[in-house]
Amino acid sequence: MSNTPTPPASERTEIKRVAVRGNYEREQLYSILDACYVCHLAFVQDGQPFSIPMLHWRIDDGLYLHGSPGSRSYRHLKSGAPIAVSVALVDGLVLARSAFHHSINYRSAVVLGQAQAIETPEEKSRALDTLVETVLVGRGSECRAPSEQELKMTGVLRISLSEASSKLRSGPPVDEEEDYDLPIWAGVLPIETKIGAPVPDPRMNAAQSLPDSLRTPKLRIK
Amino acid sequence: MSNTPTPPASERTEIKRVAVRGNYEREQLYSILDACYVCHLAFVQDGQPFSIPMLHWRIDDGLYLHGSPGSRSYRHLKSGAPIAVSVALVDGLVLARSAFHHSINYRSAVVLGQAQAIETPEEKSRALDTLVETVLVGRGSECRAPSEQELKMTGVLRISLSEASSKLRSGPPVDEEEDYDLPIWAGVLPIETKIGAPVPDPRMNAAQSLPDSLRTPKLRIK
Repeated sequence: MSNTPTPPASERTEIKRVAVRGNYEREQLYSILDACYVCHLAFVQDGQPFSIPMLHWRIDDGLYLHGSPGSRSYRHLKSGAPIAVSVALVDGLVLARSAFHHSINYRSAVVLGQAQAIETPEEKSRALDTLVETVLVGRGSECRAPSEQELKMTGVLRISLSEASSKLRSGPPVDEEEDYDLPIWAGVLPIETKIGAPVPDPRMNAAQSLPDSLRTPKLRIK
Repeated sequence: MSNTPTPPASERTEIKRVAVRGNYEREQLYSILDACYVCHLAFVQDGQPFSIPMLHWRIDDGLYLHGSPGSRSYRHLKSGAPIAVSVALVDGLVLARSAFHHSINYRSAVVLGQAQAIETPEEKSRALDTLVETVLVGRGSECRAPSEQELKMTGVLRISLSEASSKLRSGPPVDEEEDYDLPIWAGVLPIETKIGAPVPDPRMNAAQSLPDSLRTPKLRIK
């Protein structure tokens, strides 16, 4: 919890409560967005909010999503509807002396904005290349590139990161001063994300050796 | 991807696209909600959707959230505003022969509804006890229980799970039939959640031995 709050990017993303956990630094925002595979996209239709888990990726100051261009939600997003996107990673369970001060260590980010469809094939192709590379570094050059038809079947949306904020908690529990004398174990139980051993597709030609991307895999999750 | 689609709980949560991945079974819904520490809560204010990562827990057919009763968002939720909640866990990276068929293995759930505030101290107390136990089995009896004042400072909301659905992908990649002959490694890189070694609070009395809850920790994340 060594955050120093700095001025928020906009009133709408300002963290109103627990301001000490707010951090509006861009580098932190980028690293949290990059560390998550899945974001949660919120949008509104007929007054009803929806929240959909989606794969996302980032290029510079843009957050990218892809989907089926004919789908109802894609068309809604493309129309410029207001959206919110959030991500969160759990880093540990914070076990305090009091039930009340139990918490979790986490990193999270929130983005508000509108989506813009990427229309030119070159730009779309570049964005999708980055998606494959973001999922697993080096994978892009190992697999078959998208056909023209596959590119047509994939809609790509970009959301500017101009209105966004990130927030995290780290470190030990913070208890009431009088509770520190209680005979209770306190601390943090870390939660870690690990990769397992690659599982070959049963339908794969047995002669395929493990590709470079999987020898020392570079993942988004950190 | 061995899901058999069954009739959706309501039109609003029906998965419109990729219906083969839909599964409306209650047990699956519960297990996915229980396996996630953090949900993403979407609500609307002045037409703008917001998405906020929050700790959640489940009791029977209710999803619970807690917050500061005086906060703007808590008061908005308590007023019966329509909300959506989603959770997602990433289980693996699906490395197909084609860039297009790359995917992730995941488990996700979506809930639509409204929140109801839990007002009676007994019910609130019971819900918060369950929260501590849900984070780490056995922890509730090891820490100091909430004071009356702490209970007053904690608002608890319940959302019925009557309108909810879950969705998952598992198993190997699915490629175009003609791509199976390509000399490309295909398969799944599993993503696993592990717990690390407990980190004692530096301010802890050195005489505290590791509590029972941490000897063989039972976590939500599975």
